[in-house]
Amino acid sequence: MSTSFRFIVSRTDGGARLGEFHTPHGTVQTPVFMPVGTQGAVKGALFKDLEEAGAEIVLGNTYHLHLRPGDELIARRGGLHRFIGWDRAILTDSGGYQVFSLAERRKITEEGAEFQSHIDGSRRHLTPESTVDIQARLGSDVAMVLDECLAYPATRDQAAESMLRSVRWAARCRRRIEALRSSSAPDIVVSNAGQAQFGIVQGGVFPDLRCESAEATRAIGFEGYAIGGLSVGEPIDVMYDIVTETASRLPIAQPRYLMGAGTPEDLVECVSRGIDMFDCVMPTRNARNGQLFTSRGRLNIRNARYADDDGPPDPSCGCYTCRRHSRAYLRHLHLAGEMTGAALNTLHNLTFYLDTMRRIREAIMFGTFDTFRQEFLRSVSRPAHDA
Amino acid sequence: MSTSFRFIVSRTDGGARLGEFHTPHGTVQTPVFMPVGTQGAVKGALFKDLEEAGAEIVLGNTYHLHLRPGDELIARRGGLHRFIGWDRAILTDSGGYQVFSLAERRKITEEGAEFQSHIDGSRRHLTPESTVDIQARLGSDVAMVLDECLAYPATRDQAAESMLRSVRWAARCRRRIEALRSSSAPDIVVSNAGQAQFGIVQGGVFPDLRCESAEATRAIGFEGYAIGGLSVGEPIDVMYDIVTETASRLPIAQPRYLMGAGTPEDLVECVSRGIDMFDCVMPTRNARNGQLFTSRGRLNIRNARYADDDGPPDPSCGCYTCRRHSRAYLRHLHLAGEMTGAALNTLHNLTFYLDTMRRIREAIMFGTFDTFRQEFLRSVSRPAHDA
Repeated sequence: MSTSFRFIVSRTDGGARLGEFHTPHGTVQTPVFMPVGTQGAVKGALFKDLEEAGAEIVLGNTYHLHLRPGDELIARRGGLHRFIGWDRAILTDSGGYQVFSLAERRKITEEGAEFQSHIDGSRRHLTPESTVDIQARLGSDVAMVLDECLAYPATRDQAAESMLRSVRWAARCRRRIEALRSSSAPDIVVSNAGQAQFGIVQGGVFPDLRCESAEATRAIGFEGYAIGGLSVGEPIDVMYDIVTETASRLPIAQPRYLMGAGTPEDLVECVSRGIDMFDCVMPTRNARNGQLFTSRGRLNIRNARYADDDGPPDPSCGCYTCRRHSRAYLRHLHLAGEMTGAALNTLHNLTFYLDTMRRIREAIMFGTFDTFRQEFLRSVSRPAHDA
Repeated sequence: MSTSFRFIVSRTDGGARLGEFHTPHGTVQTPVFMPVGTQGAVKGALFKDLEEAGAEIVLGNTYHLHLRPGDELIARRGGLHRFIGWDRAILTDSGGYQVFSLAERRKITEEGAEFQSHIDGSRRHLTPESTVDIQARLGSDVAMVLDECLAYPATRDQAAESMLRSVRWAARCRRRIEALRSSSAPDIVVSNAGQAQFGIVQGGVFPDLRCESAEATRAIGFEGYAIGGLSVGEPIDVMYDIVTETASRLPIAQPRYLMGAGTPEDLVECVSRGIDMFDCVMPTRNARNGQLFTSRGRLNIRNARYADDDGPPDPSCGCYTCRRHSRAYLRHLHLAGEMTGAALNTLHNLTFYLDTMRRIREAIMFGTFDTFRQEFLRSVSRPAHDA
């Protein structure tokens, strides 16, 4: 049993890379943004609308799906793709981040994490081996290794110790998936024989630890590499510097995934630093809170200035929301607490993110990425706008 | 200024009527079900999905829209159709029902209703004249007169007194809309010059009062007639009897609208009694609570029996939800509190209601309505099913 995952870089422009990766559920063009489908659904969006907006891959959260409805049930239903009715690619995280941020009474040892479910209080274990097994049952196209997620700020010693543990966990994850691929763990249902596995570089805000982590993770060998532990409160320049430093230590021929970022600005800045993949709850979560991302900056739809505004949220956007509805209407729906408002805002924000990635890819293709980046940052990096 | 509303009955089959009415926003085939768009949105559905499901008219609630965002704002935005981005027909109620069911500290006099907004506590007035003006600003295609809505049960004296007041209010509503049509109230913005106005028959569960109300309301003269004050807790047989009795007293050449009903069974039973129009929150509200209407009865998606059920909610349904998703997935989304679950359930339930109306119209067309009715009631009237 081996992975059918393949990544091809077709063009570079400065540090930016244009490419695609192939999965058992289709091809994904990079740089790519992955909408977050926490519990098997992207909050506020139907899959048909995601397809229409051009999403080629979504992210599923292993922690949530493990607790409810359970990976065993999902495996019985033929894996996550069949269970949720999404035929395109899926990446699953390891569950580690949620154990660190959501679970109660957690205890971390070398063996793994012991914690209490935030849903029913039941005691649970998450080990490097068990997250591999859970993700095998889910059958995502890309699985992530278990890593330890440190709170920011951390001392150098804490970051070093944690990074080294993450490396040891990564090696255990790799051994486990190789066992599954060689069918030497026959009791585990493998829902997707072509599943790839990505390692994760840690090391906090310390460049030398990041280098050490990158080297050690490369030495284990994965189909792709993620940068974890960023976008957790550190200054933005520190994040960008760490991304630059870390990306340069990762293999040229494999995809690089910046976990949990980011703002529209982060997408463009980090593509220029060699990142190929992104995920973030920001477009969906902010939509529900009434914040719209537009080509002219961010727009808080609850603002009284929009009460009589017949214009679309973003005059440059071709999404259903912008083609059909006004700011005045969206403001009304938001203030009235109508879920339709959250859905329309979500559709717009995801379209904005996916369109941004399309424009990024186009700019790399034409060798004009740096010009695009500067113009994009100038127009988008405004807190509000008078359009 | 005159209404462009026209109603044509093309076929009858027993008491059932096949027809259509023409509005400034398109033709509506009857018998018709109108999804409820309380605050300018059908909860859980996008308009494009309603269009795809075949909705030709939706209902808007005058009480809600008057309080938020306000009919003056909606008039400034060009009327309700333009404000919400829905080009097909809209019927608005008078607001009376919500004043009686939602508002606080209400006081009813011959002049009208004085009440406190449930949103901000402000003191408000609703009179026969003001509801006509509000609905003129909204610019719906069909406006309803203000009627008094009695709680069930009511004594005969209460019902009689209330019915007579409703008749007097109806006459005032008619005078007011005629003033608007003849432009003798130039200070009121009329967003839809082709707006029709329907009278409402009251009289509780007392056949003689219903007859008296029907006669008096006909005497005033409206473009259509509604039956109000039913589906408020009375036994179902009483409701059906009152519908039969009342419908027979209404003009043959004009549409008959049973307000606030009902179940799928109610639709079929009341079409057979001569009703042409229905509205009800049941398909949308029950969807959000996890109840699905299917061709084999009602299905509560939270039921444990569906945890591993790969089948669609309704094997006979062609809606997006049934084409793409399983009961197991919908159950998971419901238990996880995902709004996507509510949206998928809503899409299915509305499709079921709209498909039922389509099948009703087809059966009348072919002269097989009574057979259809019996088969429909046999298959649908089950509390749960083992499909």
